Amino acid sequence: MIHCLLPLIVLFGSPAHPTSDDEPFSHVDPFLGTGGYGHTFPGAVMPFGMVQLSPDTASRDPKESYPWCAGYRYEDPTILGFSHTHLSGTGHSDLGDFLVMPMVGEVHTDPGPEDRPDQGYRSRFSHDLERAEPGYYTVQLLDPDVKAELTATTRVGVHRYTFPETERAHILMDLVHAIYNFDGKVVWSSVTVHDDRVVTGYRQTTGWAPDRRIYFAAEFSKPFKSYSLTREDREHYYFRERGVRRQPVGAQTFSGRKLKLVFHFDTEANEPILLKVGISPTDVAGARRNLEKEVPHWDFERVRHEAKTAWRQELDRVRIDGDRATKQIFYTSLYHASIAPMTYCDVDGRYPGMDGCIRNAGDHLNYTVFSLWDTYRATHPLFTLIQRERVPDMIRSMVRHYEENPRKQLPIWSLHGNETYCMIGYHAVSVIGDAYLKGIRGFDVARAYQAVRDTATHPDYDGLHHYRKRGYVPIDLEPEAASKTLEYAYDDFVIAQMARALGRKADFRAFSERAKSYRNVFDPVTGFMRARLADGRFREPFDPFRAAWAGDYTEGNAWQYSWYVPHDVQGLIELMGGRHSFVTKLDRLFEVETDEEKYKEVDDISGLIGQYVHGNEPSHHIAYLYNYAGMPWRTQERIAQILSVMYQTGPEGLAGNEDCGQMSAWYLFSALGFYPVAPGDGVYVIGKPSLPRATIQLGGGKTFVVTAEDLSPENIYIQSVRLNGKDWPYSYLYHRDIAVGGSLHFEMGPEPNRAWGSDPTRVPPSMTETSKTW
Amino acid sequence: MIHCLLPLIVLFGSPAHPTSDDEPFSHVDPFLGTGGYGHTFPGAVMPFGMVQLSPDTASRDPKESYPWCAGYRYEDPTILGFSHTHLSGTGHSDLGDFLVMPMVGEVHTDPGPEDRPDQGYRSRFSHDLERAEPGYYTVQLLDPDVKAELTATTRVGVHRYTFPETERAHILMDLVHAIYNFDGKVVWSSVTVHDDRVVTGYRQTTGWAPDRRIYFAAEFSKPFKSYSLTREDREHYYFRERGVRRQPVGAQTFSGRKLKLVFHFDTEANEPILLKVGISPTDVAGARRNLEKEVPHWDFERVRHEAKTAWRQELDRVRIDGDRATKQIFYTSLYHASIAPMTYCDVDGRYPGMDGCIRNAGDHLNYTVFSLWDTYRATHPLFTLIQRERVPDMIRSMVRHYEENPRKQLPIWSLHGNETYCMIGYHAVSVIGDAYLKGIRGFDVARAYQAVRDTATHPDYDGLHHYRKRGYVPIDLEPEAASKTLEYAYDDFVIAQMARALGRKADFRAFSERAKSYRNVFDPVTGFMRARLADGRFREPFDPFRAAWAGDYTEGNAWQYSWYVPHDVQGLIELMGGRHSFVTKLDRLFEVETDEEKYKEVDDISGLIGQYVHGNEPSHHIAYLYNYAGMPWRTQERIAQILSVMYQTGPEGLAGNEDCGQMSAWYLFSALGFYPVAPGDGVYVIGKPSLPRATIQLGGGKTFVVTAEDLSPENIYIQSVRLNGKDWPYSYLYHRDIAVGGSLHFEMGPEPNRAWGSDPTRVPPSMTETSKTW
Repeated sequence: MIHCLLPLIVLFGSPAHPTSDDEPFSHVDPFLGTGGYGHTFPGAVMPFGMVQLSPDTASRDPKESYPWCAGYRYEDPTILGFSHTHLSGTGHSDLGDFLVMPMVGEVHTDPGPEDRPDQGYRSRFSHDLERAEPGYYTVQLLDPDVKAELTATTRVGVHRYTFPETERAHILMDLVHAIYNFDGKVVWSSVTVHDDRVVTGYRQTTGWAPDRRIYFAAEFSKPFKSYSLTREDREHYYFRERGVRRQPVGAQTFSGRKLKLVFHFDTEANEPILLKVGISPTDVAGARRNLEKEVPHWDFERVRHEAKTAWRQELDRVRIDGDRATKQIFYTSLYHASIAPMTYCDVDGRYPGMDGCIRNAGDHLNYTVFSLWDTYRATHPLFTLIQRERVPDMIRSMVRHYEENPRKQLPIWSLHGNETYCMIGYHAVSVIGDAYLKGIRGFDVARAYQAVRDTATHPDYDGLHHYRKRGYVPIDLEPEAASKTLEYAYDDFVIAQMARALGRKADFRAFSERAKSYRNVFDPVTGFMRARLADGRFREPFDPFRAAWAGDYTEGNAWQYSWYVPHDVQGLIELMGGRHSFVTKLDRLFEVETDEEKYKEVDDISGLIGQYVHGNEPSHHIAYLYNYAGMPWRTQERIAQILSVMYQTGPEGLAGNEDCGQMSAWYLFSALGFYPVAPGDGVYVIGKPSLPRATIQLGGGKTFVVTAEDLSPENIYIQSVRLNGKDWPYSYLYHRDIAVGGSLHFEMGPEPNRAWGSDPTRVPPSMTETSKTW
Repeated sequence: MIHCLLPLIVLFGSPAHPTSDDEPFSHVDPFLGTGGYGHTFPGAVMPFGMVQLSPDTASRDPKESYPWCAGYRYEDPTILGFSHTHLSGTGHSDLGDFLVMPMVGEVHTDPGPEDRPDQGYRSRFSHDLERAEPGYYTVQLLDPDVKAELTATTRVGVHRYTFPETERAHILMDLVHAIYNFDGKVVWSSVTVHDDRVVTGYRQTTGWAPDRRIYFAAEFSKPFKSYSLTREDREHYYFRERGVRRQPVGAQTFSGRKLKLVFHFDTEANEPILLKVGISPTDVAGARRNLEKEVPHWDFERVRHEAKTAWRQELDRVRIDGDRATKQIFYTSLYHASIAPMTYCDVDGRYPGMDGCIRNAGDHLNYTVFSLWDTYRATHPLFTLIQRERVPDMIRSMVRHYEENPRKQLPIWSLHGNETYCMIGYHAVSVIGDAYLKGIRGFDVARAYQAVRDTATHPDYDGLHHYRKRGYVPIDLEPEAASKTLEYAYDDFVIAQMARALGRKADFRAFSERAKSYRNVFDPVTGFMRARLADGRFREPFDPFRAAWAGDYTEGNAWQYSWYVPHDVQGLIELMGGRHSFVTKLDRLFEVETDEEKYKEVDDISGLIGQYVHGNEPSHHIAYLYNYAGMPWRTQERIAQILSVMYQTGPEGLAGNEDCGQMSAWYLFSALGFYPVAPGDGVYVIGKPSLPRATIQLGGGKTFVVTAEDLSPENIYIQSVRLNGKDWPYSYLYHRDIAVGGSLHFEMGPEPNRAWGSDPTRVPPSMTETSKTW
């Protein structure tokens, strides 16, 4: 983290709103994860904000899009401009709407090559002259010699460009630029220049979101003296015109697939020009209304201050003691876990449903970007503790998605009113069931349960009908069949628990039965979960190290997926031959290594410890499984190891894609000392605390304080646990124990306490027990 | 008119709703104008209906699109299918949405060549097995041996296909097909197959309407057993997949630029399959609602009967006596004058504004397809007599267009929420002013006048600011400058009259002054209206016969445009050197001929008598100008000639593009015996009646009865006129004389009565008089 230790803080910081050096806000580093595989972006965003205004450094051939999922890579030497929508930490990409870039001198409408930025609008920059804080980003663009500053409200991006003295100052708006920018990405766009200050428009794109419209309303603080347009589109019958055209005065509307506008200004030395851009998923009127309601003024610092205030509140939800590096990682994790899902409605509640029709969420927020295969694991459970008031609207948004989806499915991976069908499972049921079982209300439970049930019995989704008929997904009929069977079984467990709570006995029994389906893909001969053929045989050849594209598993291999029975670990232990062989195999997971060649087809595998892959989600619960075998000290060792190796400060601080909060939520839980292995069972498995003290704000004035005495790099072992002052012999907690408020105290030491948590009556419960209770 | 004299009437007619052989309905021939240059379509439409469901016979290279503006040409040997939206009689083209075609046997997704229809879904057909009546069309498709029948409500098209016995019956829905179908026309589309009966979707197109979306909701009367999809799009990164794919059961959504679906059925002999398709400009929910509200049943004959009932009411607005051919031409003209503008809102009032935002017209209809350069002349004046209750909603629609248009202009040529800027002038002001001056209310007059004024003072429209500054549009700064100057001057006259009525003295004076601008382009040396350069000189070389693309005139030459001073014919007579030389020149217009080579650049010039071009609008008022020179018998001769030559029965019955009712409205007025030369002056110039008796329903129980005694092919001259039984010495009528109801009686004879209408005090008034009155 070179960039925020420099005296530039003084140069760029806002003296009007001083930040205490030790408040959480000052520890957040938006650059964390922008290098390597983190795929985070450093730009300005409000908590769960729709506008995510951030620099884009490259946009290349779609086949190479993976490294640029967030638009920005810390390693890149140039900036193309600043676009208004991003995804935080994903492994696939889209968005990058409405790129804005200042220029001085010659007018360019193409970015030009990275190594010759003077040939285009692209600019060189230095990290020495770049800084970011939650809700604010600034960089000195070296080529036009313009200082760029960005801030944002939920639906409005505010730009401030400080120009040198020139008669040739320009601000580009490029509607062609996109993240994951293959040819044909922009299927249509339209821009209206209303006068010499106001511009509105939209674009419709295809890509990861197959059919997406986004609208904008932009206003400049200063009238432009003229503007130019290019809409060269050689493939298109209508728009073969070449070159950049200076446009006449007066309102004009331009349509096409390749629109780029350049607005021209005269500027004095150090003259700032502000541009505020409201965006909307609904229509231009929505974008205008968002702009007018959220930023009815030209005070950049006020917007920045409001963003800062909002982030301060978010970051206060967990206050910790710890060293500077720990605070940076912890608070940045909290920051990254408060970006997705994003708001997806106008100030008046309007949003486009999955059927393209405009709806109104009323007083509730509508959310999109549910990266559920990732976030059901720890992000949404985290929300049930520290974002409890947001959870009902998230569930409402999912149920709306189901109801407005012609296929009547809860979201799998929702993106701007679209379903991308990315990844596997139907984990929205886990989010809904977990929240319901934790007593969260504020949504229509009957409608939600209907959505859950319909999604889990959908006639045409990823081999689900085969699974329902046979108890497993056959690999000769559906790819990634082993992973699908395992994840469906877990989701079904959650449905069973919700059904039980709702008094739906038949559903409880049926889904409890389905939840045991994991057994149908366990191969006792090899000891691994494997993909079965329709005829019942396991598919050959089998190599437990191989991770293949559309193979037996999803972004993983047998080593990683064989642990995926989070809801019935005791059942898995039995299958694997009892505690001893289970633990031996678990140890081996962290030790065996293999040729990288076996992973070459899969992008997302990174952060390896043996075959444990922290950079991708299927491994996230595994280190906690020792507790189920009565050996929590082994979990403590693994968590200590993972925390120290996989989470670092700085741009390359993340071992893999941040994944819309999941990598961060894993860290937050694990640093606090517990983790939700099987959301829906109401249990957090105790790991290894890493903070001397942490205070979790649960809402309603309640707090849960976690303290760890004698914590040190050597003292990684739990000696004893006290819950609300009383001795706690179990290696897990119930959600209710935390949610009512109280305290959890760990006594740490350099040697394991092999007695604590080893008794079979004190290990975390599994489905086998849960099911018996009814 | 071979096709409706055949015994097929018996075969195809609906015995449930017998039609009296002599009621107006039975005289309408929807094929009139479908051949030659008429550009009408024969399909099913309700009065002013949104759905205009009609066969398309060809769709070729965009450069050849002109002959296929209506989708259908009577001359063509094959039908491609039946699409839901058309334009009636236009000279440019678009639409043709959602082509449906039945097939039997092999599945095709391309139409195939015209000469080998078996290679595609295209089918041969015979006019012997084709029939149409208002609201109903049927044809026997020879290749699949399927009888196709179409009927429509305002927003729903209902198809009935009667199949032979087969296990390979198919119904295609082609979302790529379009009228004016250049590559890239469909910018995006999406289809959702909900189950085995319901399909919804939309497409977005560019073209004449640059940015247009249209939605549909379709339902089959019988479940399809399966369906196939092709979305081959070689240019597009995402959709390179080849061939037709059979799809699985269950709701599916498909997006792309080249979607075609084929639904498969088993059928028994003579089994009809119905398909009803609701369309909406708003969204899929709108299309569904339109479908459910307008056709909540499967009774094809009921829809057909409702359409028939609606058309009977329309056609009752003018009842005439006359021979069979006259009735066919007259009632078909009335039919064609009741198709455009079309309804452009859902049953709940929603429609997309010109800014793309969804609005609600409430209890009022929103209209689109204002072909104003054509229709301000006679169609809208006709509406002020026989469609008085529709006029306020038309004006509201225009004012909404102005308000929702970022450029704040009334429509020039509006098309499905778009402005095409087709043709010249700002003739919406004529429509609004004329209606207001005729006492029509029911719209916000202040807002309407604001729209009129802003449109006429727009800073950036077709040289208007030059015109305002110099009194003419300079040809070196703006093409078609002579025509623009002349038409602006007329529009300004109407504004002046409206200003006067509103008590806006300054506006009255200013626009009256502008209305004299025609004088600035009159060249006393050649005696023609000519285009001037910015320096004041007339542009050379000058050839009064030449009509050039983007030349001095709009779709015309000096001979045709030099008469375009409808509001101040006395002023024009003065300029041209008095009555005698005016009439001499007018005679010469109808006599001089020239090489067709001089017109080759312009599409729309057809129906020539000398240099008089009845097939295009700039000539439409000219034959009436003799009255202004006190020689109404010369007008009577010309009208008799034009009526007999330019209007015939049968597919080639029209001398030029029908133009959204204008060619028909000219006929209707002229056959009745009077014509609005200068809408806005409240005057109808008396021509030559052609009907022994006509009863015009004015609404509110009032009628105006026109009778012509001793009418015969020889007796073309008016001997005397009686208005409400009293002698009428004037060669014109005021609107108020007609609007209050009453009778007009003509006495006809074989020789002119040179006394009637010759006195200078009894000729139609001109601006010079009108202006003096204030």
